[in-house]
Amino acid sequence: MLDGLFKPRAVAVVGASANPYSIGHIVIKNLSNYGFKGPIFPINPKGGHIRSFKAFKSVLDVPDEIDLVNISVKYSLVPSVLKECGQKGIKFAIVHTAGFKEVGEEGIKREREMVELAHSLGMRIFGPNSQGIQNADPEVSVYANFTFVPMKPGNVSIIAQGGGMGEMLKLHLHNVGLGHRMYCSYGNECDLSMPEILDYYGQDEGTKAIMMQIESFKDPAAFLEVASRITPNKPILAIKAGRTREGSVAVSSHTGTLVDQAAMARAMFKKAGVVQFTDTHQMIKAATAFSTQEPPSGRRIGMITNTGGPGIQAVDESIDQGLELAKWSEAGRERLANALYAEASLGNPVDVVATANADHYFEAVDTLLKEEETDMVLVFFVTAPFTDTEAIARRIKEATDTSDKPVVVVVETHEGLYSLIDRLRESDLPVYEFAEDGARALAAMADYADTRDREIAPPPDLDVDHAAAKAIVSAHEGQNAYLGQDDAFALLTSYGIPVPKVSRITNDQELTAAASTVGLPCVLKVDSADVIHKSDEGGVVLDIASEDELQKTFKTMAGKFSGPGVSFIVQEQKASGCEIIVGATESPGLGSLVMFGLGGIFVEVMKDVTFAIAPLSLPEAVTMMREIKGFPVLEGVRGAPGCDMTAIEDLLLRVSRLAADFPAITEMDLNPVLAYPDGVSAVDVRIKVK
Amino acid sequence: MLDGLFKPRAVAVVGASANPYSIGHIVIKNLSNYGFKGPIFPINPKGGHIRSFKAFKSVLDVPDEIDLVNISVKYSLVPSVLKECGQKGIKFAIVHTAGFKEVGEEGIKREREMVELAHSLGMRIFGPNSQGIQNADPEVSVYANFTFVPMKPGNVSIIAQGGGMGEMLKLHLHNVGLGHRMYCSYGNECDLSMPEILDYYGQDEGTKAIMMQIESFKDPAAFLEVASRITPNKPILAIKAGRTREGSVAVSSHTGTLVDQAAMARAMFKKAGVVQFTDTHQMIKAATAFSTQEPPSGRRIGMITNTGGPGIQAVDESIDQGLELAKWSEAGRERLANALYAEASLGNPVDVVATANADHYFEAVDTLLKEEETDMVLVFFVTAPFTDTEAIARRIKEATDTSDKPVVVVVETHEGLYSLIDRLRESDLPVYEFAEDGARALAAMADYADTRDREIAPPPDLDVDHAAAKAIVSAHEGQNAYLGQDDAFALLTSYGIPVPKVSRITNDQELTAAASTVGLPCVLKVDSADVIHKSDEGGVVLDIASEDELQKTFKTMAGKFSGPGVSFIVQEQKASGCEIIVGATESPGLGSLVMFGLGGIFVEVMKDVTFAIAPLSLPEAVTMMREIKGFPVLEGVRGAPGCDMTAIEDLLLRVSRLAADFPAITEMDLNPVLAYPDGVSAVDVRIKVK
Repeated sequence: MLDGLFKPRAVAVVGASANPYSIGHIVIKNLSNYGFKGPIFPINPKGGHIRSFKAFKSVLDVPDEIDLVNISVKYSLVPSVLKECGQKGIKFAIVHTAGFKEVGEEGIKREREMVELAHSLGMRIFGPNSQGIQNADPEVSVYANFTFVPMKPGNVSIIAQGGGMGEMLKLHLHNVGLGHRMYCSYGNECDLSMPEILDYYGQDEGTKAIMMQIESFKDPAAFLEVASRITPNKPILAIKAGRTREGSVAVSSHTGTLVDQAAMARAMFKKAGVVQFTDTHQMIKAATAFSTQEPPSGRRIGMITNTGGPGIQAVDESIDQGLELAKWSEAGRERLANALYAEASLGNPVDVVATANADHYFEAVDTLLKEEETDMVLVFFVTAPFTDTEAIARRIKEATDTSDKPVVVVVETHEGLYSLIDRLRESDLPVYEFAEDGARALAAMADYADTRDREIAPPPDLDVDHAAAKAIVSAHEGQNAYLGQDDAFALLTSYGIPVPKVSRITNDQELTAAASTVGLPCVLKVDSADVIHKSDEGGVVLDIASEDELQKTFKTMAGKFSGPGVSFIVQEQKASGCEIIVGATESPGLGSLVMFGLGGIFVEVMKDVTFAIAPLSLPEAVTMMREIKGFPVLEGVRGAPGCDMTAIEDLLLRVSRLAADFPAITEMDLNPVLAYPDGVSAVDVRIKVK
Repeated sequence: MLDGLFKPRAVAVVGASANPYSIGHIVIKNLSNYGFKGPIFPINPKGGHIRSFKAFKSVLDVPDEIDLVNISVKYSLVPSVLKECGQKGIKFAIVHTAGFKEVGEEGIKREREMVELAHSLGMRIFGPNSQGIQNADPEVSVYANFTFVPMKPGNVSIIAQGGGMGEMLKLHLHNVGLGHRMYCSYGNECDLSMPEILDYYGQDEGTKAIMMQIESFKDPAAFLEVASRITPNKPILAIKAGRTREGSVAVSSHTGTLVDQAAMARAMFKKAGVVQFTDTHQMIKAATAFSTQEPPSGRRIGMITNTGGPGIQAVDESIDQGLELAKWSEAGRERLANALYAEASLGNPVDVVATANADHYFEAVDTLLKEEETDMVLVFFVTAPFTDTEAIARRIKEATDTSDKPVVVVVETHEGLYSLIDRLRESDLPVYEFAEDGARALAAMADYADTRDREIAPPPDLDVDHAAAKAIVSAHEGQNAYLGQDDAFALLTSYGIPVPKVSRITNDQELTAAASTVGLPCVLKVDSADVIHKSDEGGVVLDIASEDELQKTFKTMAGKFSGPGVSFIVQEQKASGCEIIVGATESPGLGSLVMFGLGGIFVEVMKDVTFAIAPLSLPEAVTMMREIKGFPVLEGVRGAPGCDMTAIEDLLLRVSRLAADFPAITEMDLNPVLAYPDGVSAVDVRIKVK
């Protein structure tokens, strides 16, 4: 329970000084100005007073109990401060101080020692190198943070790794009059972790939606577990910083792993039902809709406008966002026809025309909200100089009051009428200035509803030979090397993944037996840890028709590749089929990430691949297949027969299960798998065991 | 010359009434409130006065010369008003009145008659069903428009088909303190056309950039010609409404043609060097950068921030927008190292850290602007409570004054410091509230610079047999039907487009001769206007190896297809190659639109096609090929040899030239064309002549 952090009964501020630009001073000012409901105790070795608060020389001198301490003294002083705090029985310390993990080796050690000390004192550390927290709940009203955005109660809680981004999210909620609920920017996350805080937000009744900004996941599995528990009840909107290679370099210099973090984040968000954003402002605009509106029960949007152009922008954007245009019933259309001007256009958008009055707007909004096949409504109005715009706003609100469907309003007006926007917002309607923003906010709500209502199932039990697999993996563990082809194929076979017949040979004496095992025509491949790109190096020959040809081919290949560790694989020649790729890569802190795509040009030219977290459930496997743009190819195009979808689903389930069961498998690459109208076959595979 | 419209010496307002909600009254109010430099003459049959202006009963009673009249009387009164205006010598009439083209048949007739009348009187009509015009040039200051956005001089001119959209563009320039230059929303465009106005803006020295919103092109060729002349000197930013099928339905009910208008618009914008947008607010944000900054000379962006998160957002967005991260020289890096705090991060973004002062910002901005390999700079700063933010803003401006490279500033601050943003804007720096917006605005400038500096060439002279082509096309003109295969192939051949050998036959007696003409193996195809999807209906057999097999195949096919108009084609069997598709479709008002894509799944599944206007220049053909995502396939992937690029370029040039030379060709579909390492061959073709 983090009540001591987010609902402290009393706060001490260590490092409080009279300097109005010091962090401690600003924290005291913020706590005081925003009416913290408990006592504030500045701590300063010189005593005296800071602002109008008596300062104590040590927390030990404070007569009351204290739940939370804000610390901004130099890092060298932090340990002694912590000791006193521990002695005083304080449970939570926000450490604003920098000079820890972010400065390298020495800081990392300093940080570790601080955490050890705190734990020995029964304390938890928030930070260091952090801004702090806020809780705008009127019963607490704690602004234990040194920044500048005014605090006002709202129902969106914010958790941001970066302080600048956290402020941005608060700021623009504030700018549309919304305020926020809880807030924190957690800095180095040395002890109290993001998932713990997220969990706390999830349980907070005053939090209707959560906005997040994440730079890197310290404990991805914990995040996944917590977020998955929250999203069935309240939306989580998130930005993962560093979605491009360059962006991830900006997050840190550990490029290799961090590019994977972008794919990993997408996979986690998908699995946990988190709505992902890339644009900060768009996330905030969506949050303002979530703050007051209920998610829609479908993707059909109805629109009303009194001027054409913005209506078209709303249509174009809605379609781009995957919404559908609602169609009205006969009765609805008739009601519109009766209620509106003769010049009005009754399609979608309904164009009530610029001279429409308040009653016209009421009728249009009410009609659309009552249409069974309309799931959400966007209302646009430009404040035409010849209409009573106040009345229009009032009547729009009236119409929305009787419906649970989400409504967004887009108002085009000038400074003189901005109070109209304020009033609409105060009446709990999200108001935007551009039609596209309204459409995107509704689409985000529909995305959330879709993900919330998706089928969720546990990964299925599969009939696998775990012992056989374990024997193979164990035999290779500790070598951090690729498996030989026969072991790799045997590993797949143990998990029920279809592979061609193979036979490993080392000399030409074994060719005849091998050919009779796998049959003709066959394939000859070199098998060596040193030969990674077999095809490119002439280490694969397909379609060998006779034993004679096999002998000759072997001779050539054996001339090319020789030495210790080199062997050869004679393999059944499979008929050509639709090429797919399935892979699994170790994803630190999370297990393994499964990749799926079509082979050949689709992956090489179109980069058309998707990721998910192992082990997969059946609905996840089904979804994954349909996420790639090339999916119609699997269904069969240009007269080609469709692939065996069930076999591909089963393949995904088994590969993901194998990766999940054996964390020692760091890399697995089935490329290609040939998919047929009836079954699949993994004709080439590369597996690495650490 | 449209000086009489945009720089009128005197304005009459017909339909002026005392009713403050009437259009005429509002126009007079706007003209008067914004200080129109000439006299205003309200016209009202009752005389009297309107606001403080004496009203005349007729324009004929006005003693002065009048250049422009605003008309808002009922449509039935418009002709008589026009007659008086003509008699008075007025040259331009803005007709606000509705009830014309937009109401259907009767309105169309009314509109045509009005234009005829006006032309007979030597007048030009702007509108009808239109808002009007503005010119904020202080020497004119004419607000002959009935809307509400305050007018203030700026250097961005606006031309919008939709009034609501036009207002939106003005409004949000106004909201960032920029104002605008000329403005018009042209309504029905019955006489004075969008290209004429655009041309006028292009010649206006006070216009630095032009923003457009277009719903449908009345005269695409004129737009193309005018826009192409303007963009080498000043940027045109444009939104084409109805980019989705649903959006184009919202534009009008003529779906068929309008979906094509979206592709046509993209092709025109590309050819004319217009920067296209889909999002209204993003276009406006880009315009604010164009208003004060010069386009960059490359795509390398340098960034400075004092907080991490927004910096990463800027990086991610820059990369997504196709910008590159600049790298600093050794000297630059050293200067940064000397000038900034030790904790500062010297990569890109430069993180000067939150406590950075004004000198740090100056040094960072000045260093980056002086880096040879940096083309543009984004400066982010959050107004940290412990820094002199006023001084930071001042010093940033100082650093930018000595450079021509574009700079955008992103400020994160609260209401109390918004005046800081105002001051930065007043000093001619574009300021945004989100890092992503700054990155997008700079990317839009780089896009403009790229398109402005692209290679432009006339369509080349090609060695074609125009007479032969003419003979074929003429023979089919008036039938609005598909050509037989032999004529279609002959037409391609006349323009030097490589095709296989073909021989047309009608009975089995001709098979032997045909086979000897085209060689074996060969292809047999049915040729009939009634069989459109030959392959699907069993009308194509490939790879016929012998004459015997050809005889048998013919027998089967002739059994399936018979009757008048049915013949057969024996065709040379070409080796398999990379499948491409080239098409040309009549594009009303513009000539013909050429389509290019890869065949098979690329076009069917990935919809990976691009359009351009016929006839193509060589640089246009070269660009077109590189615009598709599948381009690497043409270069050769997975060991496949690359295609003959010169042959494909030549193919595009010839197809586009053929389509352009013969407007009667409404449809041409070369699908597939087989591309080889050496040459191409159009193995199937469908051509329709109207």
